[in-house]
Amino acid sequence: MSVITIERKVLEKNEAIARKNRDLFARHGVFVLNMVSSPGSGKTSILERTLHRLKDRVRIAVIEGDVQTDLDARRVAAYGVPAVQIITQGGCHLEASLVHDALANIDLASLDAVIIENVGNLVCPSNYDLGEAMKVVVASTTEGDDKPLKYPAMFRNSSVLIINKTDLVPYVNCSLPALQANALSINPGLTVFQTSCTTDAGIAEWCAWLLEQIRLASQGGASAAPIGIDE
Amino acid sequence: MSVITIERKVLEKNEAIARKNRDLFARHGVFVLNMVSSPGSGKTSILERTLHRLKDRVRIAVIEGDVQTDLDARRVAAYGVPAVQIITQGGCHLEASLVHDALANIDLASLDAVIIENVGNLVCPSNYDLGEAMKVVVASTTEGDDKPLKYPAMFRNSSVLIINKTDLVPYVNCSLPALQANALSINPGLTVFQTSCTTDAGIAEWCAWLLEQIRLASQGGASAAPIGIDE
Repeated sequence: MSVITIERKVLEKNEAIARKNRDLFARHGVFVLNMVSSPGSGKTSILERTLHRLKDRVRIAVIEGDVQTDLDARRVAAYGVPAVQIITQGGCHLEASLVHDALANIDLASLDAVIIENVGNLVCPSNYDLGEAMKVVVASTTEGDDKPLKYPAMFRNSSVLIINKTDLVPYVNCSLPALQANALSINPGLTVFQTSCTTDAGIAEWCAWLLEQIRLASQGGASAAPIGIDE
Repeated sequence: MSVITIERKVLEKNEAIARKNRDLFARHGVFVLNMVSSPGSGKTSILERTLHRLKDRVRIAVIEGDVQTDLDARRVAAYGVPAVQIITQGGCHLEASLVHDALANIDLASLDAVIIENVGNLVCPSNYDLGEAMKVVVASTTEGDDKPLKYPAMFRNSSVLIINKTDLVPYVNCSLPALQANALSINPGLTVFQTSCTTDAGIAEWCAWLLEQIRLASQGGASAAPIGIDE
């Protein structure tokens, strides 16, 4: 019982800090995404493709969360955007306080958007609000089409699903329609994109949507706006 | 501070139950593996291939751990072996007590081996001893070759690495030598297999090794025996 009480206290404390982060983002009109997925689903590659297309059109900073190494922050920083690496030293998810600390190294007043790449983990990060406008869950076709059913909380708590590595569908045991239907059975409100960072398929559509969200946030509207189903 | 104390108490309690499980397995001469990996790396497919080859030669039971659904237990039960599904209801890893409870449904006296498939999570299960002889970590080539560096605890705490989905190497950004070298830089004692459940490559070698471990355990030797580097 005591463990459950402590866990609830941890989550309550996290939510209080997440609210502070969210207020801070809103005050600066900055749109913030929390990207979550299994390890190796392609979050960093999607980020690279996104920065390649958008870095000269909007001002984006990236916060990278990893158990160890700053490999991802280095990949992202190569695009000339501000990048802060959080190393959790074994921790399985980012918490709002870690993001709050990382913001000390970021000038929100000079930004339009912050993209947070969470630790690769399809379970634990689903419980932790970081103050983001929404969670974006990335599912790779190589993981199979049953993952939304087996890890439902992450799909339930996300607003957007990016089905990545669509170029590998001919070689893997994954049905794109089944993967999308399984995800929508858990969360009918998901906005869905299908992308490949190898062929660039779907990246333009994702970036166009992201630009529109950033524009809405700068007008003070995105965080609260309901997101429709994208096909 | 209190959270850390609770966490240590949870781990200590887990280790006490894991010792009980381990004693029980040793008393019956049953070899027990704890399979760990990211979601979708192919643990269940490797299990299916393994059962296909070995089910008529040794008596194997399977304990499946999942956040939700009994999809994996149903896949495994199709091979006619005893299969118990543990649904963690949101929990990110198996604990020794859950395995202990599952053993109520398994007749150890009639078995040579138990394979536990943990929740797909490359972080949390690394800390939880279930009473197994050893952990087997599965890394898919589709996850990229940097995962041992980014999630070192799982590779440090495992005795065996199965690099799976080798058939997809031509299509993904992953160097097999780099993946193996990164894993061995974290844990030089890893026994390494390279497998594909699509082409069956490497499955015979893995099954031969597993058979030998089961034989050793039935003689009371495997759990304590040091495992050499395979190559």
